[in-house]
Amino acid sequence: MATEKISKRKIMLIGTGFVGMSFAYSLLSEKGIDELVLVDVNTDKAKGEEMDLSDGLVYAETKMKIRAGSYADAKDTNIVVLTAGIAQKPGQTRLELVKINAKITKDCCENLKANGFDGILICAGNPVDIMTYVAYKTSGLQKNHVFGSGDVLDTARLRFAISERLNVAPSNIHAYIMGEHGDSSFVSWANTYVGCKNLLEYLDEKGDVSLAELQELYIGVRDKAYKIIELKRATYYGIGLALKRIVTCVLNNERAILPVSSYQQGEYGQEGYYIGTPSIVGSNGVEEVIKLPMTDQDQELFDRSFNTLRQTIQDELSDLLADYE
Amino acid sequence: MATEKISKRKIMLIGTGFVGMSFAYSLLSEKGIDELVLVDVNTDKAKGEEMDLSDGLVYAETKMKIRAGSYADAKDTNIVVLTAGIAQKPGQTRLELVKINAKITKDCCENLKANGFDGILICAGNPVDIMTYVAYKTSGLQKNHVFGSGDVLDTARLRFAISERLNVAPSNIHAYIMGEHGDSSFVSWANTYVGCKNLLEYLDEKGDVSLAELQELYIGVRDKAYKIIELKRATYYGIGLALKRIVTCVLNNERAILPVSSYQQGEYGQEGYYIGTPSIVGSNGVEEVIKLPMTDQDQELFDRSFNTLRQTIQDELSDLLADYE
Amino acid sequence: MATEKISKRKIMLIGTGFVGMSFAYSLLSEKGIDELVLVDVNTDKAKGEEMDLSDGLVYAETKMKIRAGSYADAKDTNIVVLTAGIAQKPGQTRLELVKINAKITKDCCENLKANGFDGILICAGNPVDIMTYVAYKTSGLQKNHVFGSGDVLDTARLRFAISERLNVAPSNIHAYIMGEHGDSSFVSWANTYVGCKNLLEYLDEKGDVSLAELQELYIGVRDKAYKIIELKRATYYGIGLALKRIVTCVLNNERAILPVSSYQQGEYGQEGYYIGTPSIVGSNGVEEVIKLPMTDQDQELFDRSFNTLRQTIQDELSDLLADYE
Amino acid sequence: MATEKISKRKIMLIGTGFVGMSFAYSLLSEKGIDELVLVDVNTDKAKGEEMDLSDGLVYAETKMKIRAGSYADAKDTNIVVLTAGIAQKPGQTRLELVKINAKITKDCCENLKANGFDGILICAGNPVDIMTYVAYKTSGLQKNHVFGSGDVLDTARLRFAISERLNVAPSNIHAYIMGEHGDSSFVSWANTYVGCKNLLEYLDEKGDVSLAELQELYIGVRDKAYKIIELKRATYYGIGLALKRIVTCVLNNERAILPVSSYQQGEYGQEGYYIGTPSIVGSNGVEEVIKLPMTDQDQELFDRSFNTLRQTIQDELSDLLADYE
Repeated sequence: MATEKISKRKIMLIGTGFVGMSFAYSLLSEKGIDELVLVDVNTDKAKGEEMDLSDGLVYAETKMKIRAGSYADAKDTNIVVLTAGIAQKPGQTRLELVKINAKITKDCCENLKANGFDGILICAGNPVDIMTYVAYKTSGLQKNHVFGSGDVLDTARLRFAISERLNVAPSNIHAYIMGEHGDSSFVSWANTYVGCKNLLEYLDEKGDVSLAELQELYIGVRDKAYKIIELKRATYYGIGLALKRIVTCVLNNERAILPVSSYQQGEYGQEGYYIGTPSIVGSNGVEEVIKLPMTDQDQELFDRSFNTLRQTIQDELSDLLADYE
Repeated sequence: MATEKISKRKIMLIGTGFVGMSFAYSLLSEKGIDELVLVDVNTDKAKGEEMDLSDGLVYAETKMKIRAGSYADAKDTNIVVLTAGIAQKPGQTRLELVKINAKITKDCCENLKANGFDGILICAGNPVDIMTYVAYKTSGLQKNHVFGSGDVLDTARLRFAISERLNVAPSNIHAYIMGEHGDSSFVSWANTYVGCKNLLEYLDEKGDVSLAELQELYIGVRDKAYKIIELKRATYYGIGLALKRIVTCVLNNERAILPVSSYQQGEYGQEGYYIGTPSIVGSNGVEEVIKLPMTDQDQELFDRSFNTLRQTIQDELSDLLADYE
Repeated sequence: MATEKISKRKIMLIGTGFVGMSFAYSLLSEKGIDELVLVDVNTDKAKGEEMDLSDGLVYAETKMKIRAGSYADAKDTNIVVLTAGIAQKPGQTRLELVKINAKITKDCCENLKANGFDGILICAGNPVDIMTYVAYKTSGLQKNHVFGSGDVLDTARLRFAISERLNVAPSNIHAYIMGEHGDSSFVSWANTYVGCKNLLEYLDEKGDVSLAELQELYIGVRDKAYKIIELKRATYYGIGLALKRIVTCVLNNERAILPVSSYQQGEYGQEGYYIGTPSIVGSNGVEEVIKLPMTDQDQELFDRSFNTLRQTIQDELSDLLADYE
Repeated sequence: MATEKISKRKIMLIGTGFVGMSFAYSLLSEKGIDELVLVDVNTDKAKGEEMDLSDGLVYAETKMKIRAGSYADAKDTNIVVLTAGIAQKPGQTRLELVKINAKITKDCCENLKANGFDGILICAGNPVDIMTYVAYKTSGLQKNHVFGSGDVLDTARLRFAISERLNVAPSNIHAYIMGEHGDSSFVSWANTYVGCKNLLEYLDEKGDVSLAELQELYIGVRDKAYKIIELKRATYYGIGLALKRIVTCVLNNERAILPVSSYQQGEYGQEGYYIGTPSIVGSNGVEEVIKLPMTDQDQELFDRSFNTLRQTIQDELSDLLADYE
């Protein structure tokens, strides 16, 4: 009876490692979610996380129910966040994880499909652009209903770094990291702004910060995960809040522009795979990919990044996805 | 399509006077509501309020859509907050408003019914216990799906006053004002606590605050509306936040105890009408009336308050409600 | 003793009309403010507002103390929001209010000065650019420690209108209304963006929205106050939240860019008066005015708007400010 | 200059293990804190945590600065949260940790003292009641300016468990776990309430829940840490939010009643050591210990728990604290 008066919103987290749980923990300060279901192959872990997380509810802003569950919960779930997978180890590149994690992603998505999942699927496992493609292929969902965390965290890192350097609020630093969430990502500097002012012009006027210095900031951002892993063995708080940002964007149909990993349909001259591009995100998932004007150099970087992803998928995952072509 | 992935939550405010709009404005800091519909017989007023309120959205925490609407929106509305009615004027008692406001309430509820409303109906027009009865009778809804703001604001005022006097957080002052929201309300002092300590025992130990002094605080609270009206001609911010509190309690199925105006079924020895009693409020409306042990004096005060309400309804509203017996 | 361990933050609101009180009410959902002092020549009104607003505290997120006070509280106040003044009436232009409100503003600021106020002063009375100048002259504060609400509300309205038309989140619509908060304001369309994409290019690609249509949206925004006043007699919720936005920006030293009314020092070729220009706002007030590249037409609009303000001040207020030259 | 206009609030976390960092991460949804300093003997760890946590700032509600620091930051810090110490391992009791952690606590507090710390010190290392005593002795702070997390998490767990069983919001379950945060804690059932109704009377009326069943819930709560550690190897989210609750209570001078570990001065017949008792917490730390009426059995449990703590301190820590008697 209670379910009839107020429509429920249910989120499922698959994978209760540190990334997934940092996301889950951040939801304790969010409102408008009725139920959070934790799914993990290690059911003890999921149960332990339910218990630990629920202990915070009394002092939290949310009233949501938290519980360890299973794929049987998928049917009426609105949003699935998929973080299952092996974590990146010190020295390991994101691409090296590809085969193992693709298999895990495929299994999860087949389970979702078998249980009638028909909501929005957000992938966060690495290498995320490739995992998102696997999820799209194996979940049976529409292209725009599946997308990846892409460069959302990278972009937050970049905006924060520029913000610190220029002493302007990050909310006024408009810049995206694009391409693969990984070593071949890039910043299209011509398309960056401080408020409504072109960033390069702003630097020119200021005189004390060069583009070369900002490019170094980007390099630092690109390699930040490696650095954090070196210092504390893993990285999860930043991505936890990035995932919360993406989820609330879908939940509230915000239609905000986020550099998620989106299915390409020629917006940047490439198609058929997922890659980080600024995209309007709403309750239907990716609603539109925003086309920024690319310089020749930007386009070359984008193409190279896209081709790396495509090549990896074709080389490494053709067997795994054979049934889905 | 967008509506399919995330279930929507829609709230309707009927009556865009200061009370209603203070409630509406407070929702700008709430999350988890998708749409707020403003309904007023003065459609210009509703439109103006839509425009003024929407201007705040860019800097607000909510992403909800705000729009002037009509009863045609009632069908898929989850919660209706009914504040339509003539406001209390200086010197006027709440009971004097009864006939005019009962007619207005009846009209609103018949409109809701005609448009298929099947959610939770919260009444805030005065005298609120009587208006809630009228709403129940004329809306065709179940007893527990209709309730009134009752003594929720009065209780907040009392808790705040005691909190200030004792220098303890209001969240640890547990006390309810009960009975009619008006001159015959009362505090059952035997059932009041500071944390888990009986308030009267706490006063005894402290030695510097007497029960007589607290009873004076209550008198001040009971008459506070008159005092505020004298000073600023109307009172609306306090009730605005009290309504927000009630609405979020329903929306999130909190099952918190609030002294709303609830349909009596013998819990306090009376039945068939609405009056302020501590009640568990959730997504089904009033889920349970909590029975506090009454002293003889408390019971006498309760009976007197209840009889006043019943008598007024029988004397003044039998014609209006003739078709609904 | 209690004040020693945690440093206090105190805000004073001068003027408890609907604009001021809508701002004050919105602070109930904010955190990090310890005390809100309400000052009004009508001390009954201020006391009534204290009582009504305090009633919301039990259900609010803040723990701040609210009380009617006087200029004697100014000494250790961090931020003063000045909304005192006669409200704009139907048909009346903002400039017509100038003499009356300048006198009121001057009185308030002299009182602040006499009581040792040394914080940040935010003006919201109309015509706001002129009142801010008066406040600067008569308060004895530094140029950057005084500023006005300027075009912050107008800009929110514009972003909201464009957001609705393009179906993109307002947080991704980057555009400022500049110039006088009033009839001579303008939008520098060349400096508007959707995410990191130039708005005019975005329109070109979309093909279904013209710049002419957006300019009409701007006209609607510019005249929106008149329209709302026509429909509901006054406008206050939008400006209430705009003021909250400005205050939190100062309070948290955000250094966000807001189109407040800032003292000009040649950034746009003019100097010596206040006018709406995108400015970095932090705990020192206006930290920097951002220079956008102006087209010839934009510059002409800016100059005309600035000259209108300067002329009004020279023509109408030279007597009033005679002692301060 | 910026620091002059708005007074700053600075929090220091000592110990960046999972408990400390879960607390720190939860502050990203809080407002009113300007700076969070992370201190750890492993400075790499602290730096890594600064980097990971800062990545969330762009999408967080707070604007606070986060940075790895040192005791040199202590001078103008308002609140220190001390979580340094060896974590409880599977099968290990809290008391077994005592010697190692007392040494660590002592070192931290001597460092704080040497650097002029004069704020509020909140201990969370285990066994917490004993560590709080060590901190009091070695920090040179006043008794009430030092306190421990005590039974705040245990109490949250209990309220949540009762809330689930009775289907009433946890905000209306008024009950405290008292005594040592550990195996000798207890619930004074006679002092428990549902809203303003005695819990035992409520159970009697309901008829379907016995006190024995609630006592079993308590046993489950008491042993919950062991259970969670068994399932996920450690427990930190619940305590993270409990620490946030305590810190905001001090920060906002809430004067809420929390069952923290407070210095006893005879309120429950014992004195000279710290133990979990309901206490009013404000910006001066523990402002008052609330005296609940104890049954003979409750008093016996309390005395036993207190004596256990005293005995352990006398037996195990007299050498360590020899210089501080």
